[in-house]
Amino acid sequence: MIIIMKNTATKEHVDELSQWLARFNVQANPIFGKDTIVVGLVGDTGAVDRDALLRDPQVDNVIKVQEPFKLANRKFHPDNTIVRIGKNVEIGGSGVVVMAGPCSVEGHDQIIDVARHVKEQGATVLRGGAWKPRSSPYSFQGLKAEGLDLLHEASLDTGLPVVTEITNPAHIELFMDKCDCFQVGARNMQNFELLKELGQTDKPILLKRGFANTIEEFLMSAEYIMAGGNPNVILCERGIRTYETYTRNTLDISAVPALKRLSHLPVVVDPSHAAGIYWMVEPLAMSAIAAGADGLIIEVHNDPAHALSDGAQSLTYQSFEETMGKLRAVAAAVGKTI
Amino acid sequence: MIIIMKNTATKEHVDELSQWLARFNVQANPIFGKDTIVVGLVGDTGAVDRDALLRDPQVDNVIKVQEPFKLANRKFHPDNTIVRIGKNVEIGGSGVVVMAGPCSVEGHDQIIDVARHVKEQGATVLRGGAWKPRSSPYSFQGLKAEGLDLLHEASLDTGLPVVTEITNPAHIELFMDKCDCFQVGARNMQNFELLKELGQTDKPILLKRGFANTIEEFLMSAEYIMAGGNPNVILCERGIRTYETYTRNTLDISAVPALKRLSHLPVVVDPSHAAGIYWMVEPLAMSAIAAGADGLIIEVHNDPAHALSDGAQSLTYQSFEETMGKLRAVAAAVGKTI
Amino acid sequence: MIIIMKNTATKEHVDELSQWLARFNVQANPIFGKDTIVVGLVGDTGAVDRDALLRDPQVDNVIKVQEPFKLANRKFHPDNTIVRIGKNVEIGGSGVVVMAGPCSVEGHDQIIDVARHVKEQGATVLRGGAWKPRSSPYSFQGLKAEGLDLLHEASLDTGLPVVTEITNPAHIELFMDKCDCFQVGARNMQNFELLKELGQTDKPILLKRGFANTIEEFLMSAEYIMAGGNPNVILCERGIRTYETYTRNTLDISAVPALKRLSHLPVVVDPSHAAGIYWMVEPLAMSAIAAGADGLIIEVHNDPAHALSDGAQSLTYQSFEETMGKLRAVAAAVGKTI
Amino acid sequence: MIIIMKNTATKEHVDELSQWLARFNVQANPIFGKDTIVVGLVGDTGAVDRDALLRDPQVDNVIKVQEPFKLANRKFHPDNTIVRIGKNVEIGGSGVVVMAGPCSVEGHDQIIDVARHVKEQGATVLRGGAWKPRSSPYSFQGLKAEGLDLLHEASLDTGLPVVTEITNPAHIELFMDKCDCFQVGARNMQNFELLKELGQTDKPILLKRGFANTIEEFLMSAEYIMAGGNPNVILCERGIRTYETYTRNTLDISAVPALKRLSHLPVVVDPSHAAGIYWMVEPLAMSAIAAGADGLIIEVHNDPAHALSDGAQSLTYQSFEETMGKLRAVAAAVGKTI
Repeated sequence: MIIIMKNTATKEHVDELSQWLARFNVQANPIFGKDTIVVGLVGDTGAVDRDALLRDPQVDNVIKVQEPFKLANRKFHPDNTIVRIGKNVEIGGSGVVVMAGPCSVEGHDQIIDVARHVKEQGATVLRGGAWKPRSSPYSFQGLKAEGLDLLHEASLDTGLPVVTEITNPAHIELFMDKCDCFQVGARNMQNFELLKELGQTDKPILLKRGFANTIEEFLMSAEYIMAGGNPNVILCERGIRTYETYTRNTLDISAVPALKRLSHLPVVVDPSHAAGIYWMVEPLAMSAIAAGADGLIIEVHNDPAHALSDGAQSLTYQSFEETMGKLRAVAAAVGKTI
Repeated sequence: MIIIMKNTATKEHVDELSQWLARFNVQANPIFGKDTIVVGLVGDTGAVDRDALLRDPQVDNVIKVQEPFKLANRKFHPDNTIVRIGKNVEIGGSGVVVMAGPCSVEGHDQIIDVARHVKEQGATVLRGGAWKPRSSPYSFQGLKAEGLDLLHEASLDTGLPVVTEITNPAHIELFMDKCDCFQVGARNMQNFELLKELGQTDKPILLKRGFANTIEEFLMSAEYIMAGGNPNVILCERGIRTYETYTRNTLDISAVPALKRLSHLPVVVDPSHAAGIYWMVEPLAMSAIAAGADGLIIEVHNDPAHALSDGAQSLTYQSFEETMGKLRAVAAAVGKTI
Repeated sequence: MIIIMKNTATKEHVDELSQWLARFNVQANPIFGKDTIVVGLVGDTGAVDRDALLRDPQVDNVIKVQEPFKLANRKFHPDNTIVRIGKNVEIGGSGVVVMAGPCSVEGHDQIIDVARHVKEQGATVLRGGAWKPRSSPYSFQGLKAEGLDLLHEASLDTGLPVVTEITNPAHIELFMDKCDCFQVGARNMQNFELLKELGQTDKPILLKRGFANTIEEFLMSAEYIMAGGNPNVILCERGIRTYETYTRNTLDISAVPALKRLSHLPVVVDPSHAAGIYWMVEPLAMSAIAAGADGLIIEVHNDPAHALSDGAQSLTYQSFEETMGKLRAVAAAVGKTI
Repeated sequence: MIIIMKNTATKEHVDELSQWLARFNVQANPIFGKDTIVVGLVGDTGAVDRDALLRDPQVDNVIKVQEPFKLANRKFHPDNTIVRIGKNVEIGGSGVVVMAGPCSVEGHDQIIDVARHVKEQGATVLRGGAWKPRSSPYSFQGLKAEGLDLLHEASLDTGLPVVTEITNPAHIELFMDKCDCFQVGARNMQNFELLKELGQTDKPILLKRGFANTIEEFLMSAEYIMAGGNPNVILCERGIRTYETYTRNTLDISAVPALKRLSHLPVVVDPSHAAGIYWMVEPLAMSAIAAGADGLIIEVHNDPAHALSDGAQSLTYQSFEETMGKLRAVAAAVGKTI
């Protein structure tokens, strides 16, 4: 932590500050510059309140030097973490994992059919929503427990492990036997009550970046889960909110190399939610692999025009098949396989 | 709902579309322009899926004409709604309600002392956090149930009703007897599970705008609560996330007149969280009243330099006293009282 | 300037770095922390290239301590600067200066009529556009030189000094005798060629904040003008671009106290361009005065429904009159006069 | 154009509106919905002022149906435009054009050396700045006319055509003989005076997207140039400003497929300015090709640690060579060549 003093500050002010800091076993190292005094702190500054320092009338600014995330930080864990989903899928290594399926589970035949199809095309994880957070209380809210059961059936039928969104800590027990990976949606990325309870489980968590959260906040939410004891976090970039309205969200492609550099956790990209429209899913998915993503989560629907949610962005079977071909080519170009 | 056809669309395409729409009892009214065919829909378009229309290869765009919020909409409820907090406080009328208190409840003496002080200065609602959502799992998380008890004591001592943040639907019962108004924090504005359950209660809800949510999404979250049967929603603008980093958030002052125009619900402003720094609270609070806010929620602390959270933005007793004087002057200038 | 070393850096790396810095007469003061080495630089770091430091494989980050603006910085000029427009108008003191007039000059009678009206209501500067930067090449581009002449006539008729926008350095000579204050529009805030040439004049410059520029960049653009020798800069906040689309731009009301704290220059607010719609101009103007603005620039039109540009946001004579009454009340509440 | 009436509007109001519109030879087609009257306009609505309609007290909103750009619009020019730079370089076809070179021209030997190196590695256009727009008036502002001469020499030496930034309409003549392609920088994307004069030339224009401009505004700026008679516009995405501060700008990768769909003009990506830091240039460049970009513009420097500008983001010769290898692999995967 570094303290920038105001240009009215004197040596006496710095001495007073040093004495106060000594109470926290933190040593103050002042550097007297031409116009400004800067004070570098040595010791465990975790106990020093930045806010308290900012109240000091002689303090101009306080800068944190160290990244606040520890368990998620590559500095302390240089090797890639590989997370296992279900029995056989590993993410974070040399393969690109494709998770695919409908936005919402809509019925038995639908989810079985989609699961079989996406498996045939090379997806290795089935996605599908049972509880659906929707902006409007008047929209379809998901099949809930029934949807979860149907996902489980589709998993048994195809052997694909299942990832599905959880929105309430009270549902964790119900989900435990029915899915292989919890998804925390963008709107719940800072639902800390949920994160804390998921940290008590041992299932992998696909954590989506909030649509207006920074990379640091994203990693701090991963830290919440990991601090609870669960190291199996998969980071998912899904587009951020910007002034541009042509796309639903702006896919932050640079988050992929940034997250890979800052953290050892696997990184996947959701091109469907970023784009909001089907024809843009393919180029965004291709760019994600080229940028270094470990996986993709893509919406595929048996009949997008009649989907109960997010139909505009879902791929048809045929377009998913074509897209998978192109994704394989890009993956090969970057030395990976799908 | 209005459909803009692609410029390749023909009369035949429009006829097909009209037949499909007729299945939903919606009538299509095509207008054949110079370059473009536009189709206006008449009937209850709630059942027509915009996403399905966007999949139609002859459709260029689909525009919703009507605001999706109904219960919160001033169009259908022209008069201001006045919400009662506790026995005596009314918000939404000719007074400006000041809610004040510490960011976090830290102990018995602290909360009693702050409560007495803010009451003396003219605040009529006590604020204070018991469960504290924090970006870092390593930060102080609040006194929780004990904090709630202490708030209740402070309320009994001073007669001030209490507003405090709830972060988990599982806590509602516990809160019911201990507070007079639930606060839903910015990070939980789209925690629909929480909103739905709060809609089942009859207590007022201070709903904070998510820091990256639009005004329409904000009103849709109010709609979630109201659709559950609870009409007592107070809207709170607290700053939005923009590219500017000088302030913690950018107070969206125009949200005040916008919300007052779009909705009949009371609107309050939180200058403390928007600014993030104490010296900016006063000018923002003054501007909020000038812009038409019905109330303010301000952080005041007995000893901000040693606060356990948000010390940098809390007012001291002395500065709160000075600020209240200026707020009274601005309120008088706009024909209101504090 | 402060250098944060990577956690792989050793004392030897720091020694090398210190030797390199010594070539610039800059002294390196390393502080050896628990996990991190931080190096504070003393001396004139203006010659040290931050980019070069960031290339050093042992450097993690480089933080600038000092604000890059000097002439515009209140630290070095504690007293408010008062800028004179024309012979009699002073801005930056105890009065609130209202600049008013149409978006575009449209003809002789129009501009004379508007000028007389706004003067009658208490405006002391006439605004009006002759060269109009428009997003579309097919929109009305202003009366240009003729518009400038008409503004000059209106100024002679009413005695009001004139502020008008300049968009090309080649026009400066033409403007010199016809206006009292140059306006630099938001889109040209970083047109450095224009700023440099305006810095060679002695006329006041109303510098609008770019719609996506930070407060620091804004002050650096003021610095460009001042570094050329022209100290008469007036800062104008006019709304920034955010994700919110309900208003055309989001008025950054906190920029008013921020700019007043960081700089000694006068600050005015343009509520018309921020709002983009007439009914929101009044509450935003009121909030600007409450937040401490030194002036306002407001669009007023004799017949807004037939204005050649920005008709939607212009006030009619009647609404301007009503607004001025309310602005006077708020100004009085904050100890100022209009 | 579509007019949404307020829910207080009656048939009489619509009749009045229709009569007013008839004066512009525009026919009003009202659709009487359940709660709302919507009026679709047929005819050339270019003459109808949206702002005037918004002033009508019975009008709620006015929606433009047609994209405002015509010459740049793919609807009216379905085939890709191929722009020629210099004698031999074509952009917009089946190749990926790499433009490379230093941020600033710094001297004779430097620019010759960089030009030869980037040519050897497969770049086919030389980039380099002579006039440098910088945020600070105290930073290096470029070698100006001398820099232009040196670029020209490097072009003669290597045969590479040259692209360089122009910042002032007064410089056009000087540039005409010395460069092969004008670059309009992000900060000047809405410097309409500059765009209009460039539209009078016949040289290709590399138009960079402003860092806070929408895709529509970007295409309207292309339209300014094209409306002047110059069809040779190359669109360049270079990152937009968002709330995220980890990268200097957020590369809007979705702008690539969006621009390719909306317009027939070639699209290039500048990964260097988006990232702001060298190690991120490669993954962003790879993702751009995967997303469909027609070209890249990359900063390469002989000695980045001592560059006079933007050293942090420049590639060394060695890293450029490695990057080019990876770019070729991705290009091949999408059926293109470098």
